[in-house]
Amino acid sequence: MGNAKTAITPTRADDYPEWYQQVIKAADMAENSSVRGCMVIKPWGYTLWENIQRALDDMFKATGHVNAYFPLFIPKSFLEREAKHVEGFAKECAVVTHSRLVDDGQGGLKPDSPLEEPLIVRPTSETIIGASYANWVQSYRDLPILINQWANVVRWEMRTRLFLRTTEFLWQEGHTAHATSEEAMEETRKMLEVYADFAENWMAMPVIKGEKTEGERFPGADHTYSIEAMMQDRKALQAGTSHFLGQNFAKGCGIKFLNEKGEQEFAWTTSWGVSTRLVGGIIMTHSDDDGLVLPPKLAPKQVIILPVLHKADDPGAILEYCAKIKAELENQLFANRALQVEIDKRDIRGGDKRWEWIKKGAPIILEVGPRDMAQDSVFAFRRDTGEKKGVGRAEFIATAVERLNAIQDNLLARAKAHREEHTHKIDSKDEFIDFFTAQNADRPEIHGGFAMSHWGGTAEEEDALAKAHKVTIRCVPLEGENETGVCPFTGNPSPKRVVFAKSY
Amino acid sequence: MGNAKTAITPTRADDYPEWYQQVIKAADMAENSSVRGCMVIKPWGYTLWENIQRALDDMFKATGHVNAYFPLFIPKSFLEREAKHVEGFAKECAVVTHSRLVDDGQGGLKPDSPLEEPLIVRPTSETIIGASYANWVQSYRDLPILINQWANVVRWEMRTRLFLRTTEFLWQEGHTAHATSEEAMEETRKMLEVYADFAENWMAMPVIKGEKTEGERFPGADHTYSIEAMMQDRKALQAGTSHFLGQNFAKGCGIKFLNEKGEQEFAWTTSWGVSTRLVGGIIMTHSDDDGLVLPPKLAPKQVIILPVLHKADDPGAILEYCAKIKAELENQLFANRALQVEIDKRDIRGGDKRWEWIKKGAPIILEVGPRDMAQDSVFAFRRDTGEKKGVGRAEFIATAVERLNAIQDNLLARAKAHREEHTHKIDSKDEFIDFFTAQNADRPEIHGGFAMSHWGGTAEEEDALAKAHKVTIRCVPLEGENETGVCPFTGNPSPKRVVFAKSY
Ligand SMILES: [Zn+2]
Ligand SMILES: [Zn+2]
Repeated sequence: MGNAKTAITPTRADDYPEWYQQVIKAADMAENSSVRGCMVIKPWGYTLWENIQRALDDMFKATGHVNAYFPLFIPKSFLEREAKHVEGFAKECAVVTHSRLVDDGQGGLKPDSPLEEPLIVRPTSETIIGASYANWVQSYRDLPILINQWANVVRWEMRTRLFLRTTEFLWQEGHTAHATSEEAMEETRKMLEVYADFAENWMAMPVIKGEKTEGERFPGADHTYSIEAMMQDRKALQAGTSHFLGQNFAKGCGIKFLNEKGEQEFAWTTSWGVSTRLVGGIIMTHSDDDGLVLPPKLAPKQVIILPVLHKADDPGAILEYCAKIKAELENQLFANRALQVEIDKRDIRGGDKRWEWIKKGAPIILEVGPRDMAQDSVFAFRRDTGEKKGVGRAEFIATAVERLNAIQDNLLARAKAHREEHTHKIDSKDEFIDFFTAQNADRPEIHGGFAMSHWGGTAEEEDALAKAHKVTIRCVPLEGENETGVCPFTGNPSPKRVVFAKSY
Repeated sequence: MGNAKTAITPTRADDYPEWYQQVIKAADMAENSSVRGCMVIKPWGYTLWENIQRALDDMFKATGHVNAYFPLFIPKSFLEREAKHVEGFAKECAVVTHSRLVDDGQGGLKPDSPLEEPLIVRPTSETIIGASYANWVQSYRDLPILINQWANVVRWEMRTRLFLRTTEFLWQEGHTAHATSEEAMEETRKMLEVYADFAENWMAMPVIKGEKTEGERFPGADHTYSIEAMMQDRKALQAGTSHFLGQNFAKGCGIKFLNEKGEQEFAWTTSWGVSTRLVGGIIMTHSDDDGLVLPPKLAPKQVIILPVLHKADDPGAILEYCAKIKAELENQLFANRALQVEIDKRDIRGGDKRWEWIKKGAPIILEVGPRDMAQDSVFAFRRDTGEKKGVGRAEFIATAVERLNAIQDNLLARAKAHREEHTHKIDSKDEFIDFFTAQNADRPEIHGGFAMSHWGGTAEEEDALAKAHKVTIRCVPLEGENETGVCPFTGNPSPKRVVFAKSY
């Protein structure tokens, strides 16, 4: 156990998974519900998701996409159409079999009116959206279709963790159809870039863009790309995926068109998505042993003002001074909208209040008492560095956006440094196993990281490695050096290093 | 059949229900999906819904609410907790009974892994949200809770119509908990006002605010309030409801708190919602025999620019001129954000293009050819009045917001005039029956309207009236004269006139 007093128990070093749960609880972001595996996303967590949505939605629209909405339910027969997709998704899902409840004769209710065909609550929507596209597309003039959907999806998970893996989760799923393979591939890669841009520039979470190996591909895809981030426990988080689906789903769903030569062809489709899992990524990338730390661009509130009223002769004057500061801040644009400010007037102890906002990850906390007001100043606390000092009101107002940008930049730099520190080129099997083995087997300490190693094995050998060491190939990076080498596991030649890591 | 050529067949007068479907189809707003009763909301319809969401969400936040998200599924036992609620909602719903699909041995899939307790896809969330509130509330200091949720819900409907009644629909549901009856009633009425404000000032749809009679109350509510609008076929559309739930759900869910005196009490709760039905309301309030007409404040695009390229020596110059106009318009704020403008460059006949945008209800269409450009002008078409004329570019830019406001105001005025025209004080039973009986029984013409009549009957008598004439009491108005009188059906005294109408 650590010695320094921290707001969160246990600390990251003591027990990272439990620390994660406690950060969420202390920040009042989400909790488990009475429905197995489904979470309640509480206002502070949901507003973070709304801010993620707003920023991503703007980026989707700027790249030519529009939103639409398709049914929650998928007829069972639709899932039977694409064989690999069925294997990957149709197994663990919520099946609707009845459309009524009737009196069970014992004061309760029982299902009645069985459906002719069971309906599946969408685990993903390729098949149901594909059925619409098949109706919409006749000619090459109807292409491309560039649609995104914000929706809830359900995958019956056995072991769930708030935000990271839940039975129901919120996400967006882009589904596009194109006349050529090249155009579909361009779309697939473009959206991967959008995700990487969002992760770095809004979440302050550096990511590696890469392609998944065959075993980790989306069921039914020809190529799956992902962005992979390193969490503070050095495990990888797959934060977004973009799939090139070839003509597989077009064939399964019947998305056909007449090309310019008047020949019938199947369309080329893509799909891409990110989910409420991103909230888990933000928590695990930036937070510390005092709780949540938020990138200012996505924080529900960027500045919290705490009036110190009990010491005041004239509490009304202090509140007025705080309201003036709030208005001056809200007049400024940050992250494409008005700066978000809250005055917390609750009648509770100042210290408790301050700690509450520290645990909630507010980027800047201003305390304002009679003395601050007398000096026309504020006492400013910066969450990421813990720095606190008095500063003139006018100066603070003039530099607020700059201060928030500094926090945003610092979080990204910190996360990049952490990733660099724990990314190693590893060229021997022993070194590899050593890297991914905890010293303390009973209570594994934080260890490992990203191993950049050569790989020349088969899908089966990759699977065996994963089983033996709980390490998988996160991706084959799209950028970086193309250094050829030898696979330390098989001795086969390798065209370039890949990213190995333990993962969420 | 009418003589004038119209873009939509049939016309409103010919066959209103079919006209409604054809307007939706011609505007490419939505369609039925392969899943019975579930619709696909296409981009033009969905963007309208997004705009509704944005405006309402701002109003909810301005009245102190925050958003959160609760599970899609409700355990069967939760629905069994509030007896009246069960009767009203638990009957026709989607019941999840299995959590797996397995190989059926015939190349298909079959449900497997039966759930211990069936889960209901939420038809509304009072019970599942109430379960959370019961955990969150201990003391009066934890109240009020002011939460809204944007979500999809499912009610197994037998007869569905796009936007008006679908098995799955999108909505928002506000759920609040309060320490006193008075405060809960204040919230109930406040949100009714928000809905009325939104209907009139954003949708340009005048509404009557009133209370529902006992038979039309939300299952489990003590009082239900609604806003009621008159469609162009003179039927009423219930466009939003706000419920005072008393302590009924608090008792069912166990939402208890210690009051300031240290006594245990049940909380007082409210719920309020509007849904994608509002899109149907917009369509039926404003559209004409040429298709959709949209209130500018909610239109996906306010101005469409059609470059006339085939007549041009220099198409590039025309496109540049159009881009300049677009930029000048987008620099202006309308309905709290940048004006939404689209240049339609598609290579199809100009006349077809213009008609497409007329059918889609774009408030203003600008045609720009070489001659317009030479005169530094545009040719402007106004959707609501059909007015078209050339206007100088600078003048158009300077007056664009004013023009859109004029359209918004005209739509509201027109809808108000229509409602006034077809609202009658009716004081005899014969006159009442006459008012609500079509001349042509085989193919009923548009008839009826709002009958402001006295009522002194019982719930059973109201029900009999509804069965006999398909007319219901839409609401007991909250505003207007409190003129006492005699019920023409029962001869009983009546405290004030109520609104009778046929309804959706
Ligand atoms: Zn590939
Ligand atoms: Zn009442």
